[in-house]
Amino acid sequence: MQPLRHGACAHIDRQAIAHNLQTLQHRMGLEKTGRSPRIWAIVKADAYGHGLEHAVPALQAADGLAVLSASEAYRCRQLGWSKPILIMGDQQLTRDELSDPALYPLHWVVEHEGQINQLESLASVLQPHVWLRFTGNLHHAGFQAHHYRPAYARLQALSAAGRLGGIGHFQHYANAEDPEQLAAERQLFAQLTIGLPGPVSTENSAALLLSARAAANTDWLRVGLALYGVSPLPGLDGAALGLKPAMAFQAPIYGIQELQAGDSVGYGSTFRAERPLRIGLVQCGYADGYPRAATLGCPVHVPGGMAGIVGRVSMDTLSINLDQHPHIVPGHQVTLWGRPELPVENVALAAATIAPQLLTGLTARVPRVAQTPETPASQPDKRHQ
Amino acid sequence: MQPLRHGACAHIDRQAIAHNLQTLQHRMGLEKTGRSPRIWAIVKADAYGHGLEHAVPALQAADGLAVLSASEAYRCRQLGWSKPILIMGDQQLTRDELSDPALYPLHWVVEHEGQINQLESLASVLQPHVWLRFTGNLHHAGFQAHHYRPAYARLQALSAAGRLGGIGHFQHYANAEDPEQLAAERQLFAQLTIGLPGPVSTENSAALLLSARAAANTDWLRVGLALYGVSPLPGLDGAALGLKPAMAFQAPIYGIQELQAGDSVGYGSTFRAERPLRIGLVQCGYADGYPRAATLGCPVHVPGGMAGIVGRVSMDTLSINLDQHPHIVPGHQVTLWGRPELPVENVALAAATIAPQLLTGLTARVPRVAQTPETPASQPDKRHQ
Repeated sequence: MQPLRHGACAHIDRQAIAHNLQTLQHRMGLEKTGRSPRIWAIVKADAYGHGLEHAVPALQAADGLAVLSASEAYRCRQLGWSKPILIMGDQQLTRDELSDPALYPLHWVVEHEGQINQLESLASVLQPHVWLRFTGNLHHAGFQAHHYRPAYARLQALSAAGRLGGIGHFQHYANAEDPEQLAAERQLFAQLTIGLPGPVSTENSAALLLSARAAANTDWLRVGLALYGVSPLPGLDGAALGLKPAMAFQAPIYGIQELQAGDSVGYGSTFRAERPLRIGLVQCGYADGYPRAATLGCPVHVPGGMAGIVGRVSMDTLSINLDQHPHIVPGHQVTLWGRPELPVENVALAAATIAPQLLTGLTARVPRVAQTPETPASQPDKRHQ
Repeated sequence: MQPLRHGACAHIDRQAIAHNLQTLQHRMGLEKTGRSPRIWAIVKADAYGHGLEHAVPALQAADGLAVLSASEAYRCRQLGWSKPILIMGDQQLTRDELSDPALYPLHWVVEHEGQINQLESLASVLQPHVWLRFTGNLHHAGFQAHHYRPAYARLQALSAAGRLGGIGHFQHYANAEDPEQLAAERQLFAQLTIGLPGPVSTENSAALLLSARAAANTDWLRVGLALYGVSPLPGLDGAALGLKPAMAFQAPIYGIQELQAGDSVGYGSTFRAERPLRIGLVQCGYADGYPRAATLGCPVHVPGGMAGIVGRVSMDTLSINLDQHPHIVPGHQVTLWGRPELPVENVALAAATIAPQLLTGLTARVPRVAQTPETPASQPDKRHQ
């Protein structure tokens, strides 16, 4: 099914993704721990909304890709990825999938007894590498503390019989962006796994950026949000961490309205002009994934500077105040997020949400296209005039 | 591109869509106005998120389909629709599109001078039917009052030369769900068009349900939200208006956690159990389009009754309180909206948004499948056990 033609479009900067990966690797390399941890680049949720077809080629320098489901893993293989793939959220891999050489090297997060049963009954010459998940404080999946070692022992028996590629230790932190709670979660996990051999994968972007040394002392880091140029830490944006935004979400101005004093705009007439006001109508609405919670003044960028939303965001349209931008005409592109002046973090804040929700919330009608930096964004597209 | 396998799925009930259309037609028919208005069934935004492939076959009894863009119009034609199509939001139809017999019978909303210029310069034997749009209080597009009659005169000259199929009058109300403001908007439009021949299309679901007689006195109604079983009027749900929900949004339970007193669940540990608590983990998150703004207690339905969300909705997971549902196990389906006990209107209210935002906000990874009523929803799927 082809994407339908529509105004809003997400421009994906593959070089920014590659740059962000390199920045994170460099940061880790600065820690002289004697280890050199490898990196799982997280590309679940269609690469956080950026499109696997753009992210996978940009992540060649990663050691592996981490996805949620077997379907995503197959798409990565179709896109030419030959290094390890970690499936993190699919407890129901079929026998055929586990026995399919196309998926290997395959790493699989084991978070449920049923998966161990399945591995025990599997007659396959292939050896998946498994990662035993501790439920930790998140409680989204995985084994509780008193079940962890018995589960490990069963996996170890399989491994001794030559049926596994290896056994690792795995956890998602519930509070990776809070230094104190992060330290407590790390300690709990260290106690849990004391004396158990095997690589450790517990650290994410936030943990790496908050305490690089502790993160560099593990074996496989999982970096997601930061790959796309977005800060996982509250109060900082990606640029402050040396990251570049990978997505510029844009839509064209399709009309101008000259409001008179007293005129309203949008459904429910929630905005009324106090004096004559020039507004721009932008071909983007909540059916594209733009947050309906964005209210008066939520920032957007137009060629020449910043502007703000007026009136309610509707299904297909949002309107902006062009009082300070008399030169803007139909065909000009409005950036809704993803410029240096307008990180997605700021829009998330104005819309009472978080950046990954905005990135992954774009709908099917928004095409994700590789960025063409040569397009002069300051010139209006004639088709709209 | 195939949709990726994932837990969340939107089940579309085509019979409900057909029923809702019939209900609206019946309501209109009860008004003995001497006219018998025709109906544009609105299928923009991929049929409000339900999928054109499901909606178009269910809307055979409509007089025409209304879409936003030429791409959507082409998809309706590919799906076999041969009656009129109204393109409402595409000011930039190309010469080729306007001259393509495949799009006809074609109706086109004219909201900009550039479109009239284009029609004047078009040498085509085909005759589009045009609808002149008044900007009204919405100010999203269209001609202001003092430009309306001059624009009409230009179109009339084209029509006299045999180059148009007809000229209609068109408006979107800004406040259709408020009886007083609706009456004022209707009056403004009546004054604007006094003495101008041509059919009128101003009424939507809300206007029809609020004052059927006034709506039945126009020529073409545009019904959208109500077709999908959702009330366009605040304080009422679809069932109260005789409508049936067309979408049941469901996802499976993939895990159970037995929390101890003091245990937290989810990122940020925003929920902490005060006593031992059984929670269910549901394979649906904000990357599916489920609202992250849904907080503690936001209702869901499980086989046997209602339950509520605990903890933060994350990218791929949400968790629910199963204290009252000891029989629920992995594989059971959770309905997130779209059952008689759980209209989408209620979820929208709990998440501080509106129903069409939820429906159109589902992302590409949620398959839209035709409902198979024979599936016994109360039995868990074995694959998840």
